[in-house]
Amino acid sequence: MPGTVYLVGSGPGDPELLTVKAKRLLEDADVVLHDKLPGPAILEAIPEAKREDVGKRAGGERTPQADINARMVELAREGNDVVRLKGGDPFVFGRGGEEMVYLAEHGVPFEVVPGITSAVAAPAAADIPVTHRDHASSVSFVTGHEDPTKEESAVDWDALAATGGTIVVLMGVGKLPDYTRALLDAGMDADTPVALVEKGTRPGQQVATGTLETIVDARDEVGIEPPAVTVIGGVAGIREDVQ
Amino acid sequence: MPGTVYLVGSGPGDPELLTVKAKRLLEDADVVLHDKLPGPAILEAIPEAKREDVGKRAGGERTPQADINARMVELAREGNDVVRLKGGDPFVFGRGGEEMVYLAEHGVPFEVVPGITSAVAAPAAADIPVTHRDHASSVSFVTGHEDPTKEESAVDWDALAATGGTIVVLMGVGKLPDYTRALLDAGMDADTPVALVEKGTRPGQQVATGTLETIVDARDEVGIEPPAVTVIGGVAGIREDVQ
Repeated sequence: MPGTVYLVGSGPGDPELLTVKAKRLLEDADVVLHDKLPGPAILEAIPEAKREDVGKRAGGERTPQADINARMVELAREGNDVVRLKGGDPFVFGRGGEEMVYLAEHGVPFEVVPGITSAVAAPAAADIPVTHRDHASSVSFVTGHEDPTKEESAVDWDALAATGGTIVVLMGVGKLPDYTRALLDAGMDADTPVALVEKGTRPGQQVATGTLETIVDARDEVGIEPPAVTVIGGVAGIREDVQ
Repeated sequence: MPGTVYLVGSGPGDPELLTVKAKRLLEDADVVLHDKLPGPAILEAIPEAKREDVGKRAGGERTPQADINARMVELAREGNDVVRLKGGDPFVFGRGGEEMVYLAEHGVPFEVVPGITSAVAAPAAADIPVTHRDHASSVSFVTGHEDPTKEESAVDWDALAATGGTIVVLMGVGKLPDYTRALLDAGMDADTPVALVEKGTRPGQQVATGTLETIVDARDEVGIEPPAVTVIGGVAGIREDVQ
């Protein structure tokens, strides 16, 4: 009998923001496959004997997704119940969808357990609601990994600007100058509030605030480093009202 | 000394998808202010003596937000630790932002505790990831409450269609014909996969699938009723690959 693979979201990093179910599955699992994204507080609470780091290989390069997929199947076929632990939510920019399809194709029983995405929780930790009746009737999540000057960029910054809603950029510290420029070019107001939240919900949380025009300088002054979440829109200004 | 008001997300409805922190705060609270949205499994686990339903008033109409705000402040000033329990996440279409600002303005200590939004968890419960490298590099959340034919509609369906990303509509069962029409008029492909997930993660979960053109009929055939989440985009077709 094969074991089950649980694709589990670990949330934004505060161990108390794990779900009750994630906590139970971590306790019951035979093996926990993880990378660094869940953060030290959560990883160090898992017995070392059942932890397997699939984030980096010896030498420092990233483990190919194909190897992670194969390892999940191998462990389950050996009868192990496996938690594949993902930072945030497995289905929000987490490749959880690809892993789920692979498991299904290989006949391995699986279950998806959502986690709190840092796209919502990191802003919240800085007193920023991603929606608000006075400011935003929609919210969009994108990643800042891509170079918005590339012609084949999959993210349509013009369309995101046109929604009029909040834009939350994950993994967007390095490319901040590029996509703030893209949004200004798309016609967004230079005074649009922007906040950067580093290590949201974790020890060492830092916040930088400004506008589409000033946030790059604010990032550098505060010294914001990855991982951080960028919030763009009127809601980013609400933080001022509660402090 | 005033008590603290905790604005707590209850997640999508499965009690195991409460966070560890939400569970602790519910146990420790003096009073829990709630409406029906967290769902029966979560509400019935809270001792009745400390539950106060602020969703409906005698007579059936909705409690005005101003009354809920005033009640939070009153209870905290009497020294109570209060959990204001919200379905999903308090900052994703939950008016949590407004409640936070009100508490701050009235000098009441508060803390925001995120929950898993059903915008992510309900699709996940139907094996639908809201992002996927092959299908969507962004995801947008909107509510379907509004009439998209109203000129003053705050939701820009044209812009949402232009993002090319996944669109998740909360509270969008009734207005499904209107916004699917708006998205078709905006130029989206009639064959774009669409899924409706009713009671995601809860007993009685139901799913209807189709396309922008067929989903209204599918909704009626399956008999989907509120609360349900609508997922629009290529990711809605992934469900077929794992069943």
